[in-house]
Amino acid sequence: MAITDNKTNVLEGRACADRVLDELSRKLKITYDQSGEKPLLAIVLIGEDPASMIYVRNKMKAAARVGIDTLRVNLASSASTQELVEAIDKLNCDNKVSGIIVQLPLPGHIDKDMILSAISTNKDVDGFNPVNVGYLHNGDLAKGFVPGTPLGIVELIKQVEPNLRGKSVVIVGRSNIVGKPLSALLLSEDCTVTICHSKTIDLASYTSNADIVVTAMGKPKFMGAKFFKPKNIVIDVGISRDEAGMKIVGDVDFDEVQPLVKYISPVPGGVGPMTIAFLLVNTFKAFMKFNQLTHTENE
Amino acid sequence: MAITDNKTNVLEGRACADRVLDELSRKLKITYDQSGEKPLLAIVLIGEDPASMIYVRNKMKAAARVGIDTLRVNLASSASTQELVEAIDKLNCDNKVSGIIVQLPLPGHIDKDMILSAISTNKDVDGFNPVNVGYLHNGDLAKGFVPGTPLGIVELIKQVEPNLRGKSVVIVGRSNIVGKPLSALLLSEDCTVTICHSKTIDLASYTSNADIVVTAMGKPKFMGAKFFKPKNIVIDVGISRDEAGMKIVGDVDFDEVQPLVKYISPVPGGVGPMTIAFLLVNTFKAFMKFNQLTHTENE
Repeated sequence: MAITDNKTNVLEGRACADRVLDELSRKLKITYDQSGEKPLLAIVLIGEDPASMIYVRNKMKAAARVGIDTLRVNLASSASTQELVEAIDKLNCDNKVSGIIVQLPLPGHIDKDMILSAISTNKDVDGFNPVNVGYLHNGDLAKGFVPGTPLGIVELIKQVEPNLRGKSVVIVGRSNIVGKPLSALLLSEDCTVTICHSKTIDLASYTSNADIVVTAMGKPKFMGAKFFKPKNIVIDVGISRDEAGMKIVGDVDFDEVQPLVKYISPVPGGVGPMTIAFLLVNTFKAFMKFNQLTHTENE
Repeated sequence: MAITDNKTNVLEGRACADRVLDELSRKLKITYDQSGEKPLLAIVLIGEDPASMIYVRNKMKAAARVGIDTLRVNLASSASTQELVEAIDKLNCDNKVSGIIVQLPLPGHIDKDMILSAISTNKDVDGFNPVNVGYLHNGDLAKGFVPGTPLGIVELIKQVEPNLRGKSVVIVGRSNIVGKPLSALLLSEDCTVTICHSKTIDLASYTSNADIVVTAMGKPKFMGAKFFKPKNIVIDVGISRDEAGMKIVGDVDFDEVQPLVKYISPVPGGVGPMTIAFLLVNTFKAFMKFNQLTHTENE
C-alpha cells in the first residue's frame, strides 16, 4: 500500500499520480467503448508567460495520456477582461467542452474575480468559481468541483494514512487555491484542522505537534528541522527557485528534514503531478455529469 | 472600553448589542433625513414552530427599534419548495425590499439548499447563499454578506481584545452557520484558527492552549473546568435547554468555568443579541448598496 521509495520515507507523487491516471484512463476507455464520447478540456491562456506555457503543456500531455482531448485557447496578453469573458462564454455554450480552466496567474489589468465567476459552475474543473468555493466550504462535495491540488494532497496522504478521522492537520498558508480549500476538504474527512500563516506566533509549536503538516507558502526552504518531529507526515506544496535560481525547491529544507520525519513529499515530484491528475479526474466528472452517464463495468 | 460587569469577567452581549444598535439607529436617521428612504427587511417564515416565531418576533422588535421596516411573509407548513422559491423570487424583484431572510430550520420536505440559493446575493443578509459563502471564504468580505453570528462574535471579542492579529483561536463545532464562517472571518483578522468537532481527539489540549475559545456545539454544559485555563477568552454560542428542560444553557458549564477564565460570554445574553444586531447591520449595508448611498455625516 505505501507509496514510498523502497528504502526511504519519501512520498512519491509521480508514482501515486501515475496510478490515479491509469485508473482514470481505464474508466475513460470503458466509457468511450460504451458511449463513443470522450471529454474535452478547454485551457485558456493569456499571453506567453514561459512558466504558464510549461504548465499548460504538462496538462495537455497528461490529458492525452489518459484519453481526454484538449483545446488550447490563446489570447494576446493585451486582451481585455471583456474579451476574456467572451471567450469563456463561448466555451460555456459549447456542448463539446466538458471542462474549462484559465491558466493563472492573469496579467494585472484583468479582473480575476470576474473571470473565475464567468466559468460555468458545471465546467469549472479548477473549482475556483465562488459558487463552487461555497459548495466546498458548506461540505457539499458532490455538488461542485474541489480544486485539484487539495484533492491530490488528500490522496497522497491517504497512501500512508488511509484513515484521517481525528488526525490533527496543520496547514501553513491560507491561499484561496491551496490552504483554504484544503482546510475544507480535510474537515470533511473529519480531521482537526489548524490554519497557520505569516502572522502565526510560534509556528513550530503548531507544526511539531501535528500528525500531518502541509506547507503552502512559497518560501524556499523556509522550514528546517526545528519545525518538525518524528511523528509528522509532511506534505510540501511550495514551489520556488533556490537562491541561485537554479533549482526548484519547496517550503521545507528537504535534506535537513527528510531523515527526521515519518513521511515527506519531495519538490518537485510530490504534489505537482497529483494536481494535474485530479484536474483530469474533475474533467471526467464534469463530462459524466453533463452526459448523465454512469460508469459501469461489465468485466 | 471593556464590556464586562463592574466586578466580573462576563462579556455581556446585550450591552454590546445595544451599542451596535444605537450606532446603527443614528446612521439610519441621518440617511433617512438625507434621502427620505429606509430599509425593509423581509422575513419568510414557514409554519408555526414556536421557537422560530419567537426568533422572528425578536428580529422584528430590534428592527423597529433602529428604524428598519419589516415585512413578515408567512407560508403554511405544507408549502412546497417551489412555492417558497416563488415567494422569495417576488421579494428578489421588489425594489422596496433591501434584505431577505428565511427563518431556519425549514420543514424536512423543503430543499434547503435550493431555498438558500434562491435568495438574491444582493439581498442575502444572512449570508447563506453559496455565492456569499464563497466570497467570505475567499476573503472578499466587502463583496458579499457575512452571517450575523460570526460578525457578532468577532465584535464581542474585540471589546476585550481589540487586536486579533496572531491570536490563537479554537472553534469547537463546524456548522455552516457558525463554525465555518467564523473560521473564515477570523482568518481575515489574522488569527491562527483551529476547527475542532465531535471527531477531535483530546479536545481539552486544544481549548486550554488557545487565546480564544468559541464553542458552537449545542451540547448543554458539555465543557467544564478541565477544558479551560486562566488565559482563555471563552465565547459560548451554544443554546440548549438543560436536563430538566427549564433553563436555557450554553455549551460551557458557566458556573464552573466563569471563575477560572479571563473572560466568558453568558447564555442567554451573550452572542444571541449580537447576532440580531449584525443581521440589521447587514440589512443597512444591503440598503445602502442598492441605493448607491454613502453614509455622510454633516454634524
